[in-house]
Amino acid sequence: MTPTELERYLDDHKLMVEKQLDGFVPSANRPPQRLNAAIRHSLLGGGGKRLRPILVLASAEAVGGRKADLLPMACALECIHTYSLIHDDLPAMDDDDLRRGVPTCHKAFDEATAILAGDALLTLAFQLAATPIAGRTDGVVLAMIAQLARDAGIHGMVGGQMLDILAENRETTLAELQNIHIHKTGALIRASCLIGATLGGGDPEQIRHLNRFGEAFGLAFQITDDILDVIGDARIMGKSPGTDKRNNKASYPALMGLAQARQEAQNMVNEALEALSSFPPTADPLRALVSRLLDRTH
Amino acid sequence: MTPTELERYLDDHKLMVEKQLDGFVPSANRPPQRLNAAIRHSLLGGGGKRLRPILVLASAEAVGGRKADLLPMACALECIHTYSLIHDDLPAMDDDDLRRGVPTCHKAFDEATAILAGDALLTLAFQLAATPIAGRTDGVVLAMIAQLARDAGIHGMVGGQMLDILAENRETTLAELQNIHIHKTGALIRASCLIGATLGGGDPEQIRHLNRFGEAFGLAFQITDDILDVIGDARIMGKSPGTDKRNNKASYPALMGLAQARQEAQNMVNEALEALSSFPPTADPLRALVSRLLDRTH
Repeated sequence: MTPTELERYLDDHKLMVEKQLDGFVPSANRPPQRLNAAIRHSLLGGGGKRLRPILVLASAEAVGGRKADLLPMACALECIHTYSLIHDDLPAMDDDDLRRGVPTCHKAFDEATAILAGDALLTLAFQLAATPIAGRTDGVVLAMIAQLARDAGIHGMVGGQMLDILAENRETTLAELQNIHIHKTGALIRASCLIGATLGGGDPEQIRHLNRFGEAFGLAFQITDDILDVIGDARIMGKSPGTDKRNNKASYPALMGLAQARQEAQNMVNEALEALSSFPPTADPLRALVSRLLDRTH
Repeated sequence: MTPTELERYLDDHKLMVEKQLDGFVPSANRPPQRLNAAIRHSLLGGGGKRLRPILVLASAEAVGGRKADLLPMACALECIHTYSLIHDDLPAMDDDDLRRGVPTCHKAFDEATAILAGDALLTLAFQLAATPIAGRTDGVVLAMIAQLARDAGIHGMVGGQMLDILAENRETTLAELQNIHIHKTGALIRASCLIGATLGGGDPEQIRHLNRFGEAFGLAFQITDDILDVIGDARIMGKSPGTDKRNNKASYPALMGLAQARQEAQNMVNEALEALSSFPPTADPLRALVSRLLDRTH
């Protein structure tokens, strides 16, 4: 898949996901207007790469599944990701003013509304995840809801955010940093691939490979994100650059230097590609997607 | 059912629910310790009546269902209720210091930890709700997860909390107050009865009656809670009395006077009992429970 083909693939799937999200969230004209407006602001107002839903769909595609059937679940992943951004940006957490190129939810509205908008999106995620899927048993959908909750909760994303906060303003080892990332961002990215593969109808071996792919993708993603925070600018990032340094947060470049961080990202991309080695060309979007992570770090 | 029998019923079921909750939440010795300790503080540290899980179990019992099978779902309702208390108590929301007789989560820990503890409990709720139930199809469990999400989300509890915040410090009509309560507290109470009846194996008619029971119970509960806020003391309430008045929040006694509020509570209890008129003695716990709401308002 050429870079141009990947761009088109990403654009197409982003639009598909956003059209669905737009339909799932009440209009800002409907009560409670302020809540719906805040949800729409954060979910639809600032772009966003829609990486997690695209990973759900591309993982389903990799195992020959019907993507259209997985759109509600794909949107559930985006709702969970967006809620986590809204809550992470709050003054009590990272205290950020800018997100996806627009004011953060509590800046555009207020803190109470932002807390509730996050709560509403997390709740909506599970409403969407509870959609039956043609060709799959309801039992496997139930199992994926439980999987999603585990990877988004105490033992996954929320736990990772707590570890991240506890690590602020003190020395952090590379092992601790890795542990934070595996939970804070890695769990949901891995879950996207695992759930897409499972609900796409993959066999146990394929599911195992895509879970491994998601794991490596998540780490490659976080390392390249850390690198971007050092070398990037607000135009590319859609958020204030240098945030990590200002908040005294550990990062791969800070702990191992920029060159070594780039090498580590490359290693993770290689691992992700290796996990896909037995897959046919239906996995090409995933292959192109993980390879592309490196492009913007040089 | 005598008052003594009801007390024993409530004690037994409260213990049953708390034992399960204790098993579902990681020990405070396991990482992230601070998150697990905060969750345990709010979920298990301050008592709580466990009203919603008991309504789930008693509604299942009313239709002849096996209560033990519904314990994970009953606990899901308590997790959602507890998360909503943690977030509602935050400084940006109601800014309360005391809850269930102990310091609120952000007072005992800090705001960031409280936000995350709430997020973790909401997420855990759906993990528990995704437990298959013997004798029920996985499809009906999926449908109840979606129902729970609707009643906890934009069109239910979260939306009601937004309406409540928007109504602060301005004149509120009785119709607006009713609308707030139907969403903020009513939706989850009704959902408890509806879900218990459905997963307990009730027929469509029974489910309809128990949904109506839950609706009337929710309003009776809120009106009597408003009355308690006026006449109660911290010992009974487990939270600071007079909170509504201090926050300039509308309440039934403020809008219609204490005598009329008591009458309205009585009317709602009568409606709830009427909804149970076709049920056998298996509905006696529900009958006793709703009648008891009135006891503490005189």
